[in-house]
Amino acid sequence: MKIKLNDTFKHEFSFTQEDIVKFAEVTGDNNPIHLDPKYAAETMFKVPIMHGMLGASLFSKVFGTLFPGKGTIYLKQSLSFLKPMYVNTSYEAVFTVKELNEEKHRAVVETVIMEKASQAVCTTGEATIMNTDRI
Amino acid sequence: MKIKLNDTFKHEFSFTQEDIVKFAEVTGDNNPIHLDPKYAAETMFKVPIMHGMLGASLFSKVFGTLFPGKGTIYLKQSLSFLKPMYVNTSYEAVFTVKELNEEKHRAVVETVIMEKASQAVCTTGEATIMNTDRI
Repeated sequence: MKIKLNDTFKHEFSFTQEDIVKFAEVTGDNNPIHLDPKYAAETMFKVPIMHGMLGASLFSKVFGTLFPGKGTIYLKQSLSFLKPMYVNTSYEAVFTVKELNEEKHRAVVETVIMEKASQAVCTTGEATIMNTDRI
Repeated sequence: MKIKLNDTFKHEFSFTQEDIVKFAEVTGDNNPIHLDPKYAAETMFKVPIMHGMLGASLFSKVFGTLFPGKGTIYLKQSLSFLKPMYVNTSYEAVFTVKELNEEKHRAVVETVIMEKASQAVCTTGEATIMNTDRI
């Protein structure tokens, strides 16, 4: 199915501390703010926070597998990490199609992550994607 | 050590197909373009390509662990995925400090990933980071 201008898509997710450890292993990003509760206790965050890029990888997941799905090529993504994200917390990624160029099969999509309970906005951004079948 | 305006930092890296599988598992991004050689063979890429966000996670790794290192908070990142990246290939991430605000402990850093052999630019972007000790 083709996506249309102003289409929206929502996707709920949460990560565990095991996911954080695995993400740190594969990316090499072992910043103690994500892994070490003692270190985190002495920062303004008080407890370990998720890698911002792990949250942002949800955008990649959704574009490549759900909305618009298979065949999507990622061209651009801007990211503003506004609030820290935590493990074992429900988040919602919300996508809104802002611009569509059917000739070039490209779309500009607003990407937002909110904490589900409070609807507090954690991460905002804008993606440019291409999909020759679905845009 | 504090970072200064125009400072540059380089970091070499490469990923294996095992890393791609692990990244797909933890993020849920199992787009076949990254995982399935048969599917990839029928696309313009011909072989599986890396997740762009896995390349971008290198920026997070370097900021949080190497340059400027411990204590870095990620505020913003823009990403343009210009060329696909492949497994078992040497890449170089290059960082250049473009703006510095010592009062706010913030810096704007240009972030580029190049294929090491050809120096072809694969990913470009700009990061805004904060570090109260090192900026």
